[in-house]
Amino acid sequence: MNHSNAFSGNRRRFITTAGLAAGTALMAGVVPGCYPVAETPKIWKDMPLTLRFRPYELQLRHVFTLAGSSRTTTPDILTEIEWNGSVGYGEASLPPYLAETQASVSSFLSMLDLGRFHNPLHIENIMDYVDAAAGGNYAAKASVDIALHDLAGKVLGQPWYRMWGLNPADTPSTSFTIGIDTPEVVREKTAEAAAYHILKVKLGRGDDRAMIGAVRAVSSVPLCVDVNQGWTSREEALELCHWLSEQGVVFVEQPMEKSRRDDLAWLTARSPLPIIADEAVQTFDDVLPCHSVYSGINIKLMKCGGLRAARKMIALARALYMKVMIGCMTETSCAVSAASQLSPLVDWADLDGNLLISNDIFDGMTVLDGKVTLPDRPGIGVTPL
Amino acid sequence: MNHSNAFSGNRRRFITTAGLAAGTALMAGVVPGCYPVAETPKIWKDMPLTLRFRPYELQLRHVFTLAGSSRTTTPDILTEIEWNGSVGYGEASLPPYLAETQASVSSFLSMLDLGRFHNPLHIENIMDYVDAAAGGNYAAKASVDIALHDLAGKVLGQPWYRMWGLNPADTPSTSFTIGIDTPEVVREKTAEAAAYHILKVKLGRGDDRAMIGAVRAVSSVPLCVDVNQGWTSREEALELCHWLSEQGVVFVEQPMEKSRRDDLAWLTARSPLPIIADEAVQTFDDVLPCHSVYSGINIKLMKCGGLRAARKMIALARALYMKVMIGCMTETSCAVSAASQLSPLVDWADLDGNLLISNDIFDGMTVLDGKVTLPDRPGIGVTPL
Repeated sequence: MNHSNAFSGNRRRFITTAGLAAGTALMAGVVPGCYPVAETPKIWKDMPLTLRFRPYELQLRHVFTLAGSSRTTTPDILTEIEWNGSVGYGEASLPPYLAETQASVSSFLSMLDLGRFHNPLHIENIMDYVDAAAGGNYAAKASVDIALHDLAGKVLGQPWYRMWGLNPADTPSTSFTIGIDTPEVVREKTAEAAAYHILKVKLGRGDDRAMIGAVRAVSSVPLCVDVNQGWTSREEALELCHWLSEQGVVFVEQPMEKSRRDDLAWLTARSPLPIIADEAVQTFDDVLPCHSVYSGINIKLMKCGGLRAARKMIALARALYMKVMIGCMTETSCAVSAASQLSPLVDWADLDGNLLISNDIFDGMTVLDGKVTLPDRPGIGVTPL
Repeated sequence: MNHSNAFSGNRRRFITTAGLAAGTALMAGVVPGCYPVAETPKIWKDMPLTLRFRPYELQLRHVFTLAGSSRTTTPDILTEIEWNGSVGYGEASLPPYLAETQASVSSFLSMLDLGRFHNPLHIENIMDYVDAAAGGNYAAKASVDIALHDLAGKVLGQPWYRMWGLNPADTPSTSFTIGIDTPEVVREKTAEAAAYHILKVKLGRGDDRAMIGAVRAVSSVPLCVDVNQGWTSREEALELCHWLSEQGVVFVEQPMEKSRRDDLAWLTARSPLPIIADEAVQTFDDVLPCHSVYSGINIKLMKCGGLRAARKMIALARALYMKVMIGCMTETSCAVSAASQLSPLVDWADLDGNLLISNDIFDGMTVLDGKVTLPDRPGIGVTPL
């Protein structure tokens, strides 16, 4: 009798608050994004994790040109981890200039036995196992890490930015990339990117001043430039950095070949603009060697192995008083939304990968007024379309 | 009509699951500690954080002797941060050999205006503000950081170890400290500490072999030793490290004066036992200089400023492939339970501070069969007694 009285009390409270919860986002006097997801408490059964994956071909909106290659698709693997009726989503994006392929990712994922784990919240244990399963395979590892974070966040009913103590108002503006092209096309693309508050310009093919001039003809927003190791003389690189600084550029990515550490350190010590490592930094072990050679690092989930690895890289880079940017590949809103959860921790974001494809299959982070905007959903914040 | 039907459905589900939730911990086939805290969803009102604090005198169970001083009490400040009816608990423990006092902590806390913050989940923002309010004051800052983590964890309905992806089964054994005393008393104390699987012996007063011999006469458990900068010759230190290694000692804390970096690096390079920095490491900025001088670091919340700082120190130490131990002061179960949330991340724990006082006012972490045991409660896991 006592028990059923207690339940009536609970029931009344539940009805009242559930009625209010439906309208929280619109109610005056309520802190947005500051309430637990109003979900019926669940009982979790003891059951193994299940990993599934399938290949997917990303269709690019525009022909994608990097120094030396062009393409219209990017191979991808979509992953899901299921447990107690909740499903976490992940992916591995596999641009052809990197080592991993759909075949290598499938082979790595087939080798894993996630069924040995019965609790998706033990992220450290599970990712230790995945990391130890084989060397390399960072995109494949990222596809597990992202799905696992999504699942664990759903089980906990919270988005990761919230559990990491981050303020969603602190997300940076994201840059939009203007690829290498003729000055006419560059002007056109720049005009189309008017909603962005920072533009990324690909340089390093000898016509750098013309490229910047074409962008500056139609836009006055801050720029960042990615040289993709394209400059050869350190003296000319320094001169260009001074000139770019006068053109409203805020940082320079990977100006010279990553093997030229002495020249890069020389440039970083003299450049008026921060010099950011991109090709030179892939995993956690690459961060310390970047210290005093670069001003900062560009972290990408597909290169480092996922959110767990990315958070460790950010912690180490900050310990070394280095700048941090977070970037992406061409990928769906799944991996981009995962990276966005970390973005309040970084100086700059380059999270436009989902905007470059025409067959996205997730709704997730959005770019509002040029700024990374985090959805108020648990996990990495995505819903399948 | 549709709405009220929906609520009936919710209500039925809620009653069923609430009935089950009460017994989850005891049910077969349910993963322990792997379900959200079954709490009625709450609506959070827009309101400022409120910080309160009061002095408290910790009564020590035994006279506490360090090289050079004895005492029977430790001054303390208890903090609370309240928001929307939830209260987070923190504390600053102030042993007299460190710089901070009840007066300095009160003065620092009085200066803070936490009312400018309306969301306890913005831990990074709030602690950036607290850290910038004045230099030093690390115990005072820890008292805010701990209360804030406790509050945020309660708002999210989860313990921090879970949100950090840690497995509570990975907690280490905690050491129990055998203070400096006559061999007879040391033998007595060691016999009393039979429940512990690792003992910490204070050395550095010239009678080291007699101290170890007194402990070994009654116990064969692994030992760690804290020299508190007591050794003067590096050659004798190395000889002692070899001897201690044969006596089942697993590591040595702060063997010589922290200023003797060259001698310490010389010892670390040769010692069969890991050499751990204690006096030499206080805050985040001290970690990098410990690299290649010590094998690892001892982190204490009162020295570094709290959980946020401690997590960054662990990340950096791991980046440098250093060992990590987490220690404490004489303090209540409040700060000890906060430190325990991190303990699955470290190699060794020395979390016995709450056992050394007779007037604890919190129930929190426990030591079961020598091992740190985390309560399945939100936040830092404490309840006022």
